[in-house]
Amino acid sequence: MKKLHGIVVPMVTPLTLNAEIDYKATEKLVEHLISGGVHGIFVLGTTGEAQSLSAAQRESFVEFVGKQINGRARYIVGVSDTSIADSVKLAAVAKAAGAEGVVATPPYYFGPSQSDMVNWFTALADASPLPVYMYNMPSHVKVNIDPSTVVQLASHPNIKGLKDSSHNMTYFQTLCYLTRDEEDFVLFVGPEEQTAQAVLLGGAGGVNGGANMFPELYVKSYDAAVAGDLETVKKCQKAILHISTAIYTISGGPSSYLQGLKGALELLGLCNRTLALPYTAMPEEKMGALKEALAGISPQEWN
Amino acid sequence: MKKLHGIVVPMVTPLTLNAEIDYKATEKLVEHLISGGVHGIFVLGTTGEAQSLSAAQRESFVEFVGKQINGRARYIVGVSDTSIADSVKLAAVAKAAGAEGVVATPPYYFGPSQSDMVNWFTALADASPLPVYMYNMPSHVKVNIDPSTVVQLASHPNIKGLKDSSHNMTYFQTLCYLTRDEEDFVLFVGPEEQTAQAVLLGGAGGVNGGANMFPELYVKSYDAAVAGDLETVKKCQKAILHISTAIYTISGGPSSYLQGLKGALELLGLCNRTLALPYTAMPEEKMGALKEALAGISPQEWN
Amino acid sequence: MKKLHGIVVPMVTPLTLNAEIDYKATEKLVEHLISGGVHGIFVLGTTGEAQSLSAAQRESFVEFVGKQINGRARYIVGVSDTSIADSVKLAAVAKAAGAEGVVATPPYYFGPSQSDMVNWFTALADASPLPVYMYNMPSHVKVNIDPSTVVQLASHPNIKGLKDSSHNMTYFQTLCYLTRDEEDFVLFVGPEEQTAQAVLLGGAGGVNGGANMFPELYVKSYDAAVAGDLETVKKCQKAILHISTAIYTISGGPSSYLQGLKGALELLGLCNRTLALPYTAMPEEKMGALKEALAGISPQEWN
Amino acid sequence: MKKLHGIVVPMVTPLTLNAEIDYKATEKLVEHLISGGVHGIFVLGTTGEAQSLSAAQRESFVEFVGKQINGRARYIVGVSDTSIADSVKLAAVAKAAGAEGVVATPPYYFGPSQSDMVNWFTALADASPLPVYMYNMPSHVKVNIDPSTVVQLASHPNIKGLKDSSHNMTYFQTLCYLTRDEEDFVLFVGPEEQTAQAVLLGGAGGVNGGANMFPELYVKSYDAAVAGDLETVKKCQKAILHISTAIYTISGGPSSYLQGLKGALELLGLCNRTLALPYTAMPEEKMGALKEALAGISPQEWN
Repeated sequence: MKKLHGIVVPMVTPLTLNAEIDYKATEKLVEHLISGGVHGIFVLGTTGEAQSLSAAQRESFVEFVGKQINGRARYIVGVSDTSIADSVKLAAVAKAAGAEGVVATPPYYFGPSQSDMVNWFTALADASPLPVYMYNMPSHVKVNIDPSTVVQLASHPNIKGLKDSSHNMTYFQTLCYLTRDEEDFVLFVGPEEQTAQAVLLGGAGGVNGGANMFPELYVKSYDAAVAGDLETVKKCQKAILHISTAIYTISGGPSSYLQGLKGALELLGLCNRTLALPYTAMPEEKMGALKEALAGISPQEWN
Repeated sequence: MKKLHGIVVPMVTPLTLNAEIDYKATEKLVEHLISGGVHGIFVLGTTGEAQSLSAAQRESFVEFVGKQINGRARYIVGVSDTSIADSVKLAAVAKAAGAEGVVATPPYYFGPSQSDMVNWFTALADASPLPVYMYNMPSHVKVNIDPSTVVQLASHPNIKGLKDSSHNMTYFQTLCYLTRDEEDFVLFVGPEEQTAQAVLLGGAGGVNGGANMFPELYVKSYDAAVAGDLETVKKCQKAILHISTAIYTISGGPSSYLQGLKGALELLGLCNRTLALPYTAMPEEKMGALKEALAGISPQEWN
Repeated sequence: MKKLHGIVVPMVTPLTLNAEIDYKATEKLVEHLISGGVHGIFVLGTTGEAQSLSAAQRESFVEFVGKQINGRARYIVGVSDTSIADSVKLAAVAKAAGAEGVVATPPYYFGPSQSDMVNWFTALADASPLPVYMYNMPSHVKVNIDPSTVVQLASHPNIKGLKDSSHNMTYFQTLCYLTRDEEDFVLFVGPEEQTAQAVLLGGAGGVNGGANMFPELYVKSYDAAVAGDLETVKKCQKAILHISTAIYTISGGPSSYLQGLKGALELLGLCNRTLALPYTAMPEEKMGALKEALAGISPQEWN
Repeated sequence: MKKLHGIVVPMVTPLTLNAEIDYKATEKLVEHLISGGVHGIFVLGTTGEAQSLSAAQRESFVEFVGKQINGRARYIVGVSDTSIADSVKLAAVAKAAGAEGVVATPPYYFGPSQSDMVNWFTALADASPLPVYMYNMPSHVKVNIDPSTVVQLASHPNIKGLKDSSHNMTYFQTLCYLTRDEEDFVLFVGPEEQTAQAVLLGGAGGVNGGANMFPELYVKSYDAAVAGDLETVKKCQKAILHISTAIYTISGGPSSYLQGLKGALELLGLCNRTLALPYTAMPEEKMGALKEALAGISPQEWN
């Protein structure tokens, strides 16, 4: 099987008004993503609000999405937890559901040292029934997985890559350089604003939340970057920045990105805009501004 | 029942060499604490390595300790989690095990706003079968529960207090002042170096890790502060600082406190020094220095 | 001469409406402080907006205040800078103006390591014509002067103490313990909310901004703490917290403390509320709320 | 005159062994940079250790370098300070010395709000005799100049651009998008690891410290990016990452970059490796490792 690459969309978790998982909307969203051409679907990431869901909800969701995808896209599951036993438990569910890999941050309560992170990922990769992708997310986890730590872990046979959401392109480029000889190790960037640049200089792809709304755009930008077609990259990049500056900044505050994204998905008819407790949906009084912002975005921008 | 007060020891979780819960050592440690006169026992806090334990381990431990205490000390259980449903689930176990209250941080992965924290603690207190004590721990949770947020939550009938581990005494004094008319709301300080000062000016007590080793010292310091006996406070304070500067700083790094504390408990014959994955025990080559430091601490200092 | 102790007020720098130094108001403020019984006057600290003033303004101000004090209170000058040569230059001006010591943070642009801070304070103390007090201010300087660094520097013959504005009482207590045998080394705490607690357990005094408004209150609280008179300490502490919660929080934002303090000084007829560029005075529309808050504070609270 | 673009090297400040400015080495370094084809020379930035120099040293250095350049490269001067009057004073010196623009961070002691930063740059641009380039440097200044703040300031007739050293490529791309219609506003990126990516998608150039050593490499990479020649970009990028991972990481700690850079310049015969107080030069015992690292870097990599 080809190494993981391309647009692996961090799927939102559709919720009903009373914050139960909305399976009907989940079905619809998975179909939207597959028909939009995404290379993979990644559930239970930060965008998927994994940490707000109960352990039981996470397991059910992983099983449901696996059935729905049914082999039509690559399937990756987030198992980030502060307990390694519970991470491995969810990895087993993921495997049974047809996933090909799991994604995990370092533990995010008690701050680990760099050598604690080596222990963590080694133990997880040793025990996990699926290959592990590391997830660098310093804004949420408080610690950065240092380049030397990544290098040390990249040669583990069951560690296959890293997704970087640090927004730090120096870091990402440094990882690309330092792991250039690890054949089986791939590097993804989280922020959609950086995916084209990352791919132009060697990144494997992007885990881009905006692809929940407009999967074709992000796929097109990726394909153009792979082909070295700078004109198309620039056209797509402008649209991608239009989306991020118009949609993710409306409500302000720490949930602004997620409120904007789920609010837009509601307007697009894909799922409710509810966020899991304690976070709140885009407030009603701002939905007008969001509607207007969304109306200003058109596939003609990138086609 | 009298409001919670005094030394509520954040009990370590004794582990076997292969990181299973060590119930025999747990029994011994609980007896050590009760005979040392602590006012309460708090399990599954930061010192208790709660987040590193699996959900199943947490439940068993809560049940076991409740049976062991058997009403001889006040019993509080940490239920900090990023999922409110899983917090409430553990609170129910705590109640069945004889606990009188639960302690919870805000969710510690996705950063909550102040109003998200109001939502969080309100929902938790509404659903919890036991009274809730808030836990302010910005170094691990990334956010501070602002004084105005605390004031807003202090009047909730099922929220009974707050434990502050920010080390920020301005914050603590501000809370004391702003909640001075909330009859049923108590304020505890985490760091043992500050407990006497907090109690001298109105704090309810301390949640002091060092009390795992020398419970009488911290109880004596608390009693002296309540009585306004400054001479005794000063004598105890010197011993408390001797302990914290000698024991908690040996290994350096983020686990230094916990490595020193559990290492000392091993030397005192109370439990193994093992830490849960991915954290590591005080390394063998530093046990000599720890032994020497511990030998320099004697109850004669405070008696 | 007795070691520095008591309330050393971090004097604001009175400014005219167009942000020149207001020498007439400076005269009035110095007299207000001296008649209020403060033990010392400290100019060009954070509260004195030193960094916003030009090098030329700093020199003139130091000279003027020295003449005005004229030996009636102890006089300390802030010389914090990122260039050691310019710090020493200002220290010479301070000496000529009758100051007895200088206060300095570590350099605050390029982040120093702990050993860089040893170099910094050693070089400064070697070259300074006046004794040096170190200033720990991690919120503004980005780095904390670690206890082991303080211990290393405390024995320098020209380093006489440290002022801690970290708000971290664990840190302060640790310094008290570790430097307990340094006869000539004194520890001050910045935040006024903590001064009484610090002094009760061994601190030398407080550098409290609120003393610009009500010097007698802070002096009374200090005297009571020295005497171990807990009743008076508690009464004063309540008034101190009334002031800090009512006056310093009105405008919000990073300048809220300074806007409130200077706004109140304007209402008390002591000086204009102007802040130096780029910071802005308490806005006109909030002066009503400030007036009301100030009216609620009365010396009867603490007398 | 064409807008500022290309490789504007943040020149180190050569120092003698006793930390005086080394004018002879300065002459040599300026010639090295000009013959290496850099588009501009920027003195008194972070790499230039501006904050460690006295005000008098800064003025002399600005004058000397202006004479040495003598119109053969574009000349920019850092005037970052916490006092706006002193910034403007240095800007006047810069103009007299032949500089075409000045660069300034927000004030870096007392943390400014976003509107304080608007005040700051507006006042500076109003008073400065030379056009102003803003400098976003959150690791040293503690605050980020938010995109909306940049947009607000970009239309000021005397503000001509921004240099971003945040390492955050999402931020940089967002600025590119939001200021795309400001004809006279240019965006530079600080970190050399990101310059090619920034230029490929619209950035004006890079302020790259490595160009002190190997100016041709960075110029070649810039030219290739402007031309859309991805093959050459990739070849140069590999060499740029070779340099940054080999040279800047040897000593560790906050000065590691500067110690490596100045150490390499000493080995290249361009200037002494001395750093200004309180920072220390690459220690002698690590010069062997640096020499070896430098020997592994050869112009054949990029030619």
